[in-house]
Amino acid sequence: MVKPDAPLTVHGMSTSGNCYKVRLLLEQLGARYRWIEVDSAGGQTRTPQFLALNPNGKVPVVELGDGRVLTESNAILFWLAEGTPLLPVDGWQRAQALSWMFFEQYSHEPYIAVARFISGWARDDSPRRDDLPRLREHGHAALAVMERHLSLATWFTGPDYGIADIALFAYTAVAEDGGIALSPYPAIQQWLQRVRAQPGFVAMPAPEAQVLARIATRC
Amino acid sequence: MVKPDAPLTVHGMSTSGNCYKVRLLLEQLGARYRWIEVDSAGGQTRTPQFLALNPNGKVPVVELGDGRVLTESNAILFWLAEGTPLLPVDGWQRAQALSWMFFEQYSHEPYIAVARFISGWARDDSPRRDDLPRLREHGHAALAVMERHLSLATWFTGPDYGIADIALFAYTAVAEDGGIALSPYPAIQQWLQRVRAQPGFVAMPAPEAQVLARIATRC
Repeated sequence: MVKPDAPLTVHGMSTSGNCYKVRLLLEQLGARYRWIEVDSAGGQTRTPQFLALNPNGKVPVVELGDGRVLTESNAILFWLAEGTPLLPVDGWQRAQALSWMFFEQYSHEPYIAVARFISGWARDDSPRRDDLPRLREHGHAALAVMERHLSLATWFTGPDYGIADIALFAYTAVAEDGGIALSPYPAIQQWLQRVRAQPGFVAMPAPEAQVLARIATRC
Repeated sequence: MVKPDAPLTVHGMSTSGNCYKVRLLLEQLGARYRWIEVDSAGGQTRTPQFLALNPNGKVPVVELGDGRVLTESNAILFWLAEGTPLLPVDGWQRAQALSWMFFEQYSHEPYIAVARFISGWARDDSPRRDDLPRLREHGHAALAVMERHLSLATWFTGPDYGIADIALFAYTAVAEDGGIALSPYPAIQQWLQRVRAQPGFVAMPAPEAQVLARIATRC
């Protein structure tokens, strides 16, 4: 299933949804890979060494055995899933999957992931906390679009589960960490359960206790 | 070149870079298409009719003759370019093109396009004007990443010009409308000229006089 020039190395932060996407797909493909933990929240993506790997200073990064690198979580998913049942072959259907993946990065992650980050990782006196109401409002708007789709379809990738579902699952599953309740979205809750029931599913690791305590206080 | 189930209809705002991407590619492919102007800045993407087309309330939207729709500018580019020289065949190379397209939507457009929008379209008393310094700072960070790539490569899509170049060209070419100077980026300026020299190139239409006047005042 996985590309011939494995072994792959993933540079990622385990509690980042964008990094978790890559881990989930690799696990579901049964791939062998090495994971190098990068503390993005602690500044490890801004070091000269890391910026040589990804000048945009973000995780995840996939590095091949020959030193070639690929950045951007959803581009990594697309590359890894090519030739597997997790990416449709039909051109229109793969464009629809990509459409949901661009939706995820533009209309979903910047609100739902960022609300979670501020809730769990930002300092108590961070001025970014003032953004939370706006982020939550936009996060709910994204969830409403997803809920509507799920009234008509089972998956986001196409007729079957695949990479658009992985891309959207990562931060939707932890939206409540950022104070964005999932209770108004029964179809999303059922879809989350369908994703969790897929073969090879692994959950995202829980953040450290200090982060969990902040989330519990702020939500 | 273009898909058999043409004619296509594009719902778009001519002065939006995301919509212009689709127009530029269609022109370069020599495709026939119908363009329906949608005044996104004036609220026409929030009407019930438009939301039935795209529940996420954004342009561009491509509609096929049989009523099927595709949203998200970069997913539209990918679909239209499949099977043409503007999208590489090689899996690794197309993943690199997609990586730049996700970079564009996550790290580039939300700063460079939004700074331009606030400069040209927001009301004089809009509180969003307070965001301009932060947006410009992040916009320059994205341009620095592009400049570094162009010190090593001619194009973003792969060995040849293609859809990642179109995706990045759209708002980079008008970055100065948002007060983000291109003078520090000689490689970007040369790349913009290379894009403009491609067969079938068309420029984005200029905004209306009132918008141009605001841009001139605010930058």
